[in-house]
Amino acid sequence: MKKFINDPADVVVEALQGVALAHPDRLRVDLERQLVLRVGGPVPGKVGLLSGGGAGHEPLHSGFVGPGMLDAACCGQVFTSPVPDQILAAAIAVDAGAGVLQIVKNYTGDVLNFEMAAELAEGEGVRVRTVLVADDVAVEDSLFTAGRRGVGATVLVEKIVGAAAEDGLDLDACTALGEQVAGASRSMGIALGSCTVPAAGRPTVDLGPDEIEIGVGIHGEPGRRRQALAPARELAAQLVEPVVEDLELRRGERALVFLNGLGGTPQLELYLMFHEVHRQLKERGVDVVRSLVGSFLTSLDMAGCSLTLLRPDEPMLRWWDAPVDTPALRW
Amino acid sequence: MKKFINDPADVVVEALQGVALAHPDRLRVDLERQLVLRVGGPVPGKVGLLSGGGAGHEPLHSGFVGPGMLDAACCGQVFTSPVPDQILAAAIAVDAGAGVLQIVKNYTGDVLNFEMAAELAEGEGVRVRTVLVADDVAVEDSLFTAGRRGVGATVLVEKIVGAAAEDGLDLDACTALGEQVAGASRSMGIALGSCTVPAAGRPTVDLGPDEIEIGVGIHGEPGRRRQALAPARELAAQLVEPVVEDLELRRGERALVFLNGLGGTPQLELYLMFHEVHRQLKERGVDVVRSLVGSFLTSLDMAGCSLTLLRPDEPMLRWWDAPVDTPALRW
Repeated sequence: MKKFINDPADVVVEALQGVALAHPDRLRVDLERQLVLRVGGPVPGKVGLLSGGGAGHEPLHSGFVGPGMLDAACCGQVFTSPVPDQILAAAIAVDAGAGVLQIVKNYTGDVLNFEMAAELAEGEGVRVRTVLVADDVAVEDSLFTAGRRGVGATVLVEKIVGAAAEDGLDLDACTALGEQVAGASRSMGIALGSCTVPAAGRPTVDLGPDEIEIGVGIHGEPGRRRQALAPARELAAQLVEPVVEDLELRRGERALVFLNGLGGTPQLELYLMFHEVHRQLKERGVDVVRSLVGSFLTSLDMAGCSLTLLRPDEPMLRWWDAPVDTPALRW
Repeated sequence: MKKFINDPADVVVEALQGVALAHPDRLRVDLERQLVLRVGGPVPGKVGLLSGGGAGHEPLHSGFVGPGMLDAACCGQVFTSPVPDQILAAAIAVDAGAGVLQIVKNYTGDVLNFEMAAELAEGEGVRVRTVLVADDVAVEDSLFTAGRRGVGATVLVEKIVGAAAEDGLDLDACTALGEQVAGASRSMGIALGSCTVPAAGRPTVDLGPDEIEIGVGIHGEPGRRRQALAPARELAAQLVEPVVEDLELRRGERALVFLNGLGGTPQLELYLMFHEVHRQLKERGVDVVRSLVGSFLTSLDMAGCSLTLLRPDEPMLRWWDAPVDTPALRW
């Protein structure tokens, strides 16, 4: 394993020290609790938006803290859920009287810990709602998950609900919107190579020199099948087809397309894949009305990409277009 | 080699098709000439800012086209200079009567082709000046370069001169500013793993399982030495020391720090390295007044990072802070 680390046990806290030093005007970092908070928050009267999960998926979630997106992110250790006490501290920190919405990726550890934190927060007088994201169509149950895994749609939920919360929507309306966005999104990924977790020291997935994993999870969980490497147009088809079919996206409909890099894949390849995806959607009569291309939900150094499609309605598009000002997403 | 490509010969043009589809409101892509142009340009009375080079370093340069930065980027094939005809077409396209400034990384092919393009453009009545960036302190001459290689400082020159051009500085003033920024910047990089050029199909550099290259070039050119992997704090010291010494940065001085990922290194590790660099600069009495952390000048899928330090004056800081609105850099 070759990585820029000191002790594997200190990776997350040392990276958070870097985050604090790089973004002092935007982010406040609580190193002890591994929380990243919006400077100047909480915003009076605004629903507090909170997410989090295991580290190793950066910029998700800490890079999405700021006006128009999250109020706080809780960081667990690499690929490990944050604990209830952390999440509770974050919920209290971001509550400005309008309640707190937790955006949670569907992994059993995350679900349990966010649930427990919500109960504790309610005990402290903080109203908490949760949106669960479970958009990965690859497999039904997985290594760390009952039901579908939560992947790329998380970024879309955070952006769209983030804008709506900024616009003054109340807790119930933000929750309903988050559920709509999560419900209208589907994803699937492909790994060309494995990630390596620092504490493990060796690749998570044992892929042969010409072998790839179709439907991989963002921790290297098995997908639908392993197969030989194929040209980009065939790989794009193997993402477009299951995602479009599961979403039941019909000719004449519109889509927001998020083509995401998993960490080790260069931009050149991501844009090439986006071209393939775009062309294939057009052939199916699907109109790409918005797009996002880049490495926003990663799996450490995994070479690979994922495709997320959202069937947007007008309010979702308006909130997608609304200003956002975070380290990783800004317009 | 496992990559998202179809035919290695088509990688750049297919990626540019993706760029065009992803950014229709910001970028105009000339696929035949492999140019990426700012929508709505050229801006009357503004110096036209032009850069380019081999592909494989994205987001450099195409991701930096837009208000506050470049007017156009010329893309060669992977790790191959653009040809004079391409550059000439770009120069003519971005000239709005105030002349054109070319920002060129010091590689012999690039230097010759941009020089020839400048002569041709002058013949067409376009005034052209060139800023050469040669900031890599690792080695004096290299595989593709007489003199020092041009690396991370290119991003700083493009951002700072981009803002100054937007502010109305004339061609001579933009050229002088670009030379000042390039002259006040130094860089050095480390590779943990090799990149793989699609047309070659195998890793450029043959590094052992625990071996790294100190001072690597952005095409995998040899650096100062190979050595065993070491903790991040030691690797940071091996970048900080030569860069600070070559720049003759003294206790009490200020620095803009650019900690750059080379493509295959996750954000977690980049922020961890930034923390180390920041700490070591502080120990040396250097005040980090601005920073940029992320993968902005990459070497395809190379695992590694580079450090660039700039000794900024007040105007440079003002133009660094000025708004920029490109796909890859926006504030």
